[in-house]
Amino acid sequence: SFASDNHAGMHPDVLAAFNQANVEHSGSYGLEDDWTQKAEDCFRTLFGEDVATHFVFSGTAANVLGMQTMTRPHNAILCADVSHLNADETGAPEAVTGCKLIPIPAEHGKINSSQIDRYLVDRGDMHRSQPKVVSITQASEYGTVYSIDEIRSIVEVAHAADTYVHMDGARIANAAAHLGVRMTEFTRDVGIDVLSFGGCKNGMAMGEAVVFFRPELAADFPYIRKQGLNLASKMRFITSQFIGLLTDDLWLRNGRRANAMATLLSNELADASGLEITHPVQANSVFAILPKAAIAKLQEEYDFYVWDPNTSEVRWMTAFDTQESDVKGFAGRIREVLASVL
Amino acid sequence: SFASDNHAGMHPDVLAAFNQANVEHSGSYGLEDDWTQKAEDCFRTLFGEDVATHFVFSGTAANVLGMQTMTRPHNAILCADVSHLNADETGAPEAVTGCKLIPIPAEHGKINSSQIDRYLVDRGDMHRSQPKVVSITQASEYGTVYSIDEIRSIVEVAHAADTYVHMDGARIANAAAHLGVRMTEFTRDVGIDVLSFGGCKNGMAMGEAVVFFRPELAADFPYIRKQGLNLASKMRFITSQFIGLLTDDLWLRNGRRANAMATLLSNELADASGLEITHPVQANSVFAILPKAAIAKLQEEYDFYVWDPNTSEVRWMTAFDTQESDVKGFAGRIREVLASVL
Amino acid sequence: SFASDNHAGMHPDVLAAFNQANVEHSGSYGLEDDWTQKAEDCFRTLFGEDVATHFVFSGTAANVLGMQTMTRPHNAILCADVSHLNADETGAPEAVTGCKLIPIPAEHGKINSSQIDRYLVDRGDMHRSQPKVVSITQASEYGTVYSIDEIRSIVEVAHAADTYVHMDGARIANAAAHLGVRMTEFTRDVGIDVLSFGGCKNGMAMGEAVVFFRPELAADFPYIRKQGLNLASKMRFITSQFIGLLTDDLWLRNGRRANAMATLLSNELADASGLEITHPVQANSVFAILPKAAIAKLQEEYDFYVWDPNTSEVRWMTAFDTQESDVKGFAGRIREVLASVL
Amino acid sequence: SFASDNHAGMHPDVLAAFNQANVEHSGSYGLEDDWTQKAEDCFRTLFGEDVATHFVFSGTAANVLGMQTMTRPHNAILCADVSHLNADETGAPEAVTGCKLIPIPAEHGKINSSQIDRYLVDRGDMHRSQPKVVSITQASEYGTVYSIDEIRSIVEVAHAADTYVHMDGARIANAAAHLGVRMTEFTRDVGIDVLSFGGCKNGMAMGEAVVFFRPELAADFPYIRKQGLNLASKMRFITSQFIGLLTDDLWLRNGRRANAMATLLSNELADASGLEITHPVQANSVFAILPKAAIAKLQEEYDFYVWDPNTSEVRWMTAFDTQESDVKGFAGRIREVLASVL
Repeated sequence: SFASDNHAGMHPDVLAAFNQANVEHSGSYGLEDDWTQKAEDCFRTLFGEDVATHFVFSGTAANVLGMQTMTRPHNAILCADVSHLNADETGAPEAVTGCKLIPIPAEHGKINSSQIDRYLVDRGDMHRSQPKVVSITQASEYGTVYSIDEIRSIVEVAHAADTYVHMDGARIANAAAHLGVRMTEFTRDVGIDVLSFGGCKNGMAMGEAVVFFRPELAADFPYIRKQGLNLASKMRFITSQFIGLLTDDLWLRNGRRANAMATLLSNELADASGLEITHPVQANSVFAILPKAAIAKLQEEYDFYVWDPNTSEVRWMTAFDTQESDVKGFAGRIREVLASVL
Repeated sequence: SFASDNHAGMHPDVLAAFNQANVEHSGSYGLEDDWTQKAEDCFRTLFGEDVATHFVFSGTAANVLGMQTMTRPHNAILCADVSHLNADETGAPEAVTGCKLIPIPAEHGKINSSQIDRYLVDRGDMHRSQPKVVSITQASEYGTVYSIDEIRSIVEVAHAADTYVHMDGARIANAAAHLGVRMTEFTRDVGIDVLSFGGCKNGMAMGEAVVFFRPELAADFPYIRKQGLNLASKMRFITSQFIGLLTDDLWLRNGRRANAMATLLSNELADASGLEITHPVQANSVFAILPKAAIAKLQEEYDFYVWDPNTSEVRWMTAFDTQESDVKGFAGRIREVLASVL
Repeated sequence: SFASDNHAGMHPDVLAAFNQANVEHSGSYGLEDDWTQKAEDCFRTLFGEDVATHFVFSGTAANVLGMQTMTRPHNAILCADVSHLNADETGAPEAVTGCKLIPIPAEHGKINSSQIDRYLVDRGDMHRSQPKVVSITQASEYGTVYSIDEIRSIVEVAHAADTYVHMDGARIANAAAHLGVRMTEFTRDVGIDVLSFGGCKNGMAMGEAVVFFRPELAADFPYIRKQGLNLASKMRFITSQFIGLLTDDLWLRNGRRANAMATLLSNELADASGLEITHPVQANSVFAILPKAAIAKLQEEYDFYVWDPNTSEVRWMTAFDTQESDVKGFAGRIREVLASVL
Repeated sequence: SFASDNHAGMHPDVLAAFNQANVEHSGSYGLEDDWTQKAEDCFRTLFGEDVATHFVFSGTAANVLGMQTMTRPHNAILCADVSHLNADETGAPEAVTGCKLIPIPAEHGKINSSQIDRYLVDRGDMHRSQPKVVSITQASEYGTVYSIDEIRSIVEVAHAADTYVHMDGARIANAAAHLGVRMTEFTRDVGIDVLSFGGCKNGMAMGEAVVFFRPELAADFPYIRKQGLNLASKMRFITSQFIGLLTDDLWLRNGRRANAMATLLSNELADASGLEITHPVQANSVFAILPKAAIAKLQEEYDFYVWDPNTSEVRWMTAFDTQESDVKGFAGRIREVLASVL
């Protein structure tokens, strides 16, 4: 299957950590619970002593509830038009925060600081939702990665306009693997305010972390999370997974592995005729346009998404557990099918 | 620990089912996913072929999102003043559904049909939130259980007033174990419309089911769940647990065990002087009033909640994994401490 | 009609001020509009130079939007169970602010500081909506008036618990008339944070003012008002009415007149047998219990509300334009009818 | 002033009707109130016996609350990107209905049926807000008017996709004047479901009507309006204005007059060099691009909006009370100023 990184299961080390949490009784809701404290420590190790980390069930919850801490209903949230936030969350951001989403046309899944500037207007105009957050997705929904400079530039423009910057890091491990720098260098060091740190797409069963680089923003989060239907009573079964994921850099190794498999697939198809790769392959997905007939044939054997039926664009996605032999087999089959339909 | 049934971990059979779900890739979001289909089948076996069952992360989500399917923001939801819905969900019902909660004074955690009648008024008065749901908790927050007749009577009054009845079954296994009848007899057979079927407090790590006995009410639930921040992408890790829980009536055996331990504790303390049991012990908790000095001493060794510091009332709660020896040891220690402080 | 003070029309002086606003073009939304600036000045004269006053269409809007400036959705609002806020606004406070309402049992329509204390608990408990506002109605829905000491005591308890105090002054003119002191003495001088100042029930066609005694609370109000569907584009037609109402103390004279008529009605019935006045008559309403048969007969000739059909309690309400002869005629008829049915 | 039609005051006939409502006591909230019944009759005369009409304070309320009757929070509302709904209501549609707004790129303020089709997708995809309403503005924010055929075509596409069509008629009188047909011909006859019928911009002080052509959609509107902070207690002071406006076709005469003045202005400037009119002049506004220096000079004497400072586009708006001599004087001055800066 090259359908999605959320079709994969749990990494064995994550599963092992989960199993180890099933001993005796423990405090509920993450209070007086060794696993949750240890998971918080893992995040302090990764990001610094003064970050506040809270855990939720889903990525949508991490994004939406994180953003609720920074906004009031008369605010606007700026994001890429193709972002998960805008396109795939059934209006959860609007319904939960009450805010307006301002979709910004993205290129290869990313927005840039010069675009944002144009939307940070109408300050003080009571007829307009007042921008308060810019959200960027790292890695983006199109498998591209913001450079450190691109992020810094966005943050500078946003902060200058009294606007926070949120990072949707559902695939942050893939971004870190691509950039090859320490995690902090493209998050808190360049001014990101709140980060959704993805667990589920990177080897966990469920669970995401909301990391607050300005701890004062986190003060109300426990209430917001509970009201937002995302407080786990047996919290340790989320946080033990994070312990597994953050031990010995498993998160990074998983990200590297998934990325490498996407790059391999891309390389194997580099000179295939009848196929055009549509976005830079920087994280763990390959987007390509190929003939409809070829898509139909391939879907008989492989599971993947047709991203845009109008343009005949598909998305092939790798995961932490994708095998080199699977990629090579898939690439070979793609070339065969392309040859047969052209 | 006698603090809460959510301090317990996972039942070994549930954990085994969870572990077995970690094989290969599977469709996400519960679509084209064998585990989710099988879990839905388990609920059909339990409740009938025509029920619609959906899965969410948390009990608050099961209650609130279930209720959202039945209401619009100008409606009112009637519930016991002491219900989890009213007292322990940080206003999630109001914030998510927009509805007004009408708290009804409960006796031993339960409300009755003659009370409800009084609140089903002001029909057509545009200044008043229009009642649309009555929610009852089975077993109640005070460890008591509604009889079949009590439920039927509530449903009759509610339905006669064009009002649905929701059952918060976070501890429905304990209620079933107490009543000793088939599950349907006190739910769909007596007219319950929507049921929150608890998993977490009965041996799962997380996960609750929303069971719709009127399938038409479920039509929009997938959207409501997603917008309600409770759609699991790797759904099988929730639904595999339900398979474990619903196989060979494990849910019921767990409920019986927890109830038996509460009854045992209650019996062991029956003639203890200086202690008054405040509610009938029908499910898996014992509420008692005892001297503050005794509470303080006991809390040095045991973990439990002081329910009401003003009246010196405590809650002792058993779980599916509570051991007879633990109960006897605890009861003995209570008697000793009582003797020492009187 | 003794049905309600909102059955009355406009005071002639208010209508005259309204008519005078219909000249030439003027800035919309209250910006660059002489009437709105002058109305704001009237409120500065009444309450002090540093208050911020904003205008909305309805009393429900004044209450709800005023409260939204002080809260976030995980907060709770404490108010009398019989308050308009809790009983007569179709859940608007919950739906708009997202907050939970905590109804406090009122005596003669009023709550007191010792009650409030009991509800200002569970600080830091993430399962509980955190109290942030106490709202009191002055004059109350039962025609009673809080004394200065009662208000001060409530504010002290609330402020000590980091909780604001809101005053629903839909009938504040009647309260001021009863207390016989300057307006500030029972509002800002004793610590009220936000006041809904009623216009409609006191001689205007529509329009209420939200007066912020802590101007920093008002900063976001223009956005909240617009999003709350209460920004008048031709604002001068609201604010000109306030100019009329606040000129030469018309508001106070209207309040005195209405109160005097309720007192007169009450006095005329003081020794009537078969009738019991149920609340102190301090503002512009008289609540009484009398035989059902008498009620039925009276309603053939007069318009008024049966407040509680179970107890056979009625509400008779006077307005700024109620005539002494009408009251005497009504009182006489009540006595006749009572005599006839006893 | 050519700033806005909401800078104008009340038409004398509307004011007269308002004044006539200030007699004696009347039922509140539009119940048992002769003026409200008569205003409803006026709308029945205009649109047919079986329409349901409700009255609110503001245009934003008419739009948002009308749309709330047709949606649930997981729905999407399609509208022009430049629509008032999307651009000028501070996120009220999102915050109040919970729905997502889908902005569609407009041409001259209008959208068309072939565009809509592309957005009525993702049916049954639980990750996407489900379209339920298409909203069009008639006349549009750019002073253009949808033809009957254009509306019919939009409605056909929308209804075929189980989607309602809402018409924001804040300036519907101007549209009717332009089209020169009976009101029903471009509203209910072509399938519009809910109409916001504007009063304020056409000679009233405040007040809009929500006209339901499917009365079943109106059933809950009284609750929605109250919760939506838009129930007038002294309703007659809104509805009497509508009586004035709808008597002897005053609404249409006002619309014609405003349109004629915009056309006159446009004609007077037709051959002016240095000025480009940017949208067809069909209702009561003229949009034009002219040199920044000219704009600055003109604003010293006249009040109007710079619509887009980047393109140097201005909006000149006429109202029911704009005088021919004012228009000619303004046009002359524009030509003079243009000549002086070129």
